[in-house]
Amino acid sequence: MARRPGRPRASGDPHGERDTRQDVLDAAAALFCTVGFTSTSTRSVAERAGVRQASIYHHFAGKDAILLELLLGTVRPSVELADALASGAEGAAARLWALAHADVRLLTSGPLNLGALYVLPEVAGEQFAEFHAQRDRLRARYDELAAAVVADGSGAERGPLVLGLVESVILRRRDSASLDPVAVADAVADGVLRLLGCDEGRIAAARTAAAALV
Amino acid sequence: MARRPGRPRASGDPHGERDTRQDVLDAAAALFCTVGFTSTSTRSVAERAGVRQASIYHHFAGKDAILLELLLGTVRPSVELADALASGAEGAAARLWALAHADVRLLTSGPLNLGALYVLPEVAGEQFAEFHAQRDRLRARYDELAAAVVADGSGAERGPLVLGLVESVILRRRDSASLDPVAVADAVADGVLRLLGCDEGRIAAARTAAAALV
Repeated sequence: MARRPGRPRASGDPHGERDTRQDVLDAAAALFCTVGFTSTSTRSVAERAGVRQASIYHHFAGKDAILLELLLGTVRPSVELADALASGAEGAAARLWALAHADVRLLTSGPLNLGALYVLPEVAGEQFAEFHAQRDRLRARYDELAAAVVADGSGAERGPLVLGLVESVILRRRDSASLDPVAVADAVADGVLRLLGCDEGRIAAARTAAAALV
Repeated sequence: MARRPGRPRASGDPHGERDTRQDVLDAAAALFCTVGFTSTSTRSVAERAGVRQASIYHHFAGKDAILLELLLGTVRPSVELADALASGAEGAAARLWALAHADVRLLTSGPLNLGALYVLPEVAGEQFAEFHAQRDRLRARYDELAAAVVADGSGAERGPLVLGLVESVILRRRDSASLDPVAVADAVADGVLRLLGCDEGRIAAARTAAAALV
C-alpha cells in the first residue's frame, strides 16, 4: 500500500509475481467497491497497485477476469466447506449452522464488501459462468442441508430463504460500517435453523456441535 | 416505449409533463439496471425516453435526482404501510406478516430489479439522504413489530434479520428471472415470523388476519 504508483518490480524475485497478483486484486477490489466497476480502468488499477499496466495482463486477461477472481473468493471457500460437510457424521442442523456461520464470516471479512458486486449488471454475462456455477453449487448444498433438517418436506420451499438470509449480510454491511462479524454470524446461523422450524433446544445443540466441525 | 428517440413532445398537452417525467424514470431505470448507473448519461436517458435532454432537467436536477426518485419508489410505499399499520388493532404478528408481504411484492414488482441499485457506491452519498432516512424509518418499524411479536426481548437482536430476509428477494430476483412474486412473498412473510420463533399455528393465524389488513 505504501508503494508508489507506477514503481516497477524487480524481476527474478520469486515472491514478486505472487505479490503483484494480490496487489492487483486488492487495488481492483477497492476501486470496484468505491468508484464502481464500470468507472474503473485497468490503468487506474495499475496506478493504485503501483504496478505497470502490462503486469496486470501478465496475471489477468482483463478487468472481467479480475472481477471474476474477486467474486470466486466470496464463494469458493464456502463451497469447499459445504462439500466437506456434505459427507459429515454430525447432524444436519449442526452442519448447516457451521456452513451458514462460516459463510457469513467470509462475507463480512476483509475491509471491502465484495458481495455487493453480485448485483452488477455485468456479472450476468457468460464470462462469469464459473462464479454462477460455484454459487449454484453452494445453493444446492444449502438446499440439501435444509431438506435434511426438516424431515417433513418443507425444506425444499425454505431452502432459498436460507441462502437469502445468509447473503442478507451483504446489504447489512452496506448499511452499517460497524457490524460485529461474530455476533452477526451467530445470529444468522441461529436464524437459519429457526427459519427451518427448529426449536431453541435443537438450535443450542446444533451450535455446540458445530463448534467441533470448523 | 414505441416512441422514436429524440422525438419532441407536443407542448400544451396537460398530460405530457407527467408522461415525460414517468418516461424519464422508466428509461433511466432500464439503463441503470442493464448498462449500469455510471455508464448511463442523461443524454442516453433522453434518447431512450424519446425526449429532449432539456426536458429531463425540467423535472430532475440531474442523474442523481432520477436515481433518488427510483430508490424512494422502492421504500416509500412500504414506509406508508408500516406507518398505517403501527397504530393498528390487529396483533403484531399479523401486521408484521402484512408489511413483509407487501414489501416483498413491491421489491419483486415491475420489470426491473431496482433494489439492486441499493448497493451502488454512489448511493452512500449525501444526495441520497432522503432514501436512507426512509429506509431507516422502515427498519425502525420492522424492529418495533419484531419486538412486539416476541415478548421475551429477543426481538431487538432479530429485527435486522427480518429486514434482511425481506430484502433478500433482491438477490433472488438477480438469480432467477422467473420468481412467482406471490409465492415468494408468502414464503418470506411466513419466514419472518418463523425467524421470530412463532409456531406454525400462530403463523397461520397471522396470515389469515393479515388478509384483512391490506
